[in-house]
Amino acid sequence: MEEDREWLTKCHTRSLYAGESLVDYEDLTKDVFLVQSGEMRAVLRFSVGKEAILGTFRRGDLMGELSAIDDLSRSASLMAVTDAVVTVIPYVVFHDILRTCPGVTRALMQLLSLRIRAMNERVSELSFLDTKHRLYNALLRLSRSRGDGGGERIISPPLVHAELAEHIGSSRETVSREMSRLIREQLIERTSRAIVLKNPVELSRRISKALEG
Amino acid sequence: MEEDREWLTKCHTRSLYAGESLVDYEDLTKDVFLVQSGEMRAVLRFSVGKEAILGTFRRGDLMGELSAIDDLSRSASLMAVTDAVVTVIPYVVFHDILRTCPGVTRALMQLLSLRIRAMNERVSELSFLDTKHRLYNALLRLSRSRGDGGGERIISPPLVHAELAEHIGSSRETVSREMSRLIREQLIERTSRAIVLKNPVELSRRISKALEG
Repeated sequence: MEEDREWLTKCHTRSLYAGESLVDYEDLTKDVFLVQSGEMRAVLRFSVGKEAILGTFRRGDLMGELSAIDDLSRSASLMAVTDAVVTVIPYVVFHDILRTCPGVTRALMQLLSLRIRAMNERVSELSFLDTKHRLYNALLRLSRSRGDGGGERIISPPLVHAELAEHIGSSRETVSREMSRLIREQLIERTSRAIVLKNPVELSRRISKALEG
Repeated sequence: MEEDREWLTKCHTRSLYAGESLVDYEDLTKDVFLVQSGEMRAVLRFSVGKEAILGTFRRGDLMGELSAIDDLSRSASLMAVTDAVVTVIPYVVFHDILRTCPGVTRALMQLLSLRIRAMNERVSELSFLDTKHRLYNALLRLSRSRGDGGGERIISPPLVHAELAEHIGSSRETVSREMSRLIREQLIERTSRAIVLKNPVELSRRISKALEG
């Protein structure tokens, strides 16, 4: 559509180095971002080593929409995990698009709805599971199907233990101990490029059991 | 507006007794609800005594909108804490309203955005605070200003210790012990009708200190 082209001319791209921050917690900026390449992360940092990872974003994912919607300051920092490129959609353009495209508004509401569901699950996980089962749950949540019909799932690029610890609110030492145990049990395998979940069904079964207990 | 009246004729009210459930987890219903009176709660229950309270709703609050937005099954149960009356807005009517009232759509997106912000805070709270500080945080989060300019906050009707435990993912015994300590320190006061936070600023200070530590 002609409108599409007009909007595009009002957006620009921004490149980030791994580790660079795009938005800081409580910033007053309101632009919205679309990931073109690389991996970005929404993070709440309290002090050195105390970070909660709230979300991970890859090609095609929208980020930073909350401040554009409710006009409040940034709820978290957005930082590049790898080198990344994002499209910056200025606040005014974002609202122009919403005003003229009911389909986009609907898709955005669905996205927000899914984010709330994911957060609900995370709150439950953190409320009721001990560290070991929170780790199993995070491994399942962060992995994707290998897509070869074998039922294995992978996390690639692999997360280091300190990052997994931030996902589940635990320490690196505890995560390392549990990961070693999972490797011994042949439930996971670690390569230089991925963490492979060899038997995701067994991990799910253990979580269900812990929740019922 | 004329449209308003027409929509109203397509909604109906439903009365619930304290303890009655309006919606069950994974139900396929998609109606949306507006609380008229009483108190409702969104709850995830895993087994007897293992419940996460995801939200509390009072007069004027909208509930149950996720399934209407994303067409997925119910993300939690909705139950009446006290006797309650709700307006049932059928799925089709809800979407009629969204289609014809851009203002409502905007308000709904803002509501979803605020819910995500609240969940983010809760995830951080659960990830990084020990039980004692999670309790302080929950007391602040669940209370409202007394509105007499004195800086005190109240939770009324008061929650019992088992309910507070569900809010923070802990046990009733632990909550009881910490509440007794707070009463001894004169930071809170318990009456038959309310929990009074005598010095909310001190509770906030302790939480900040724990997060920085």
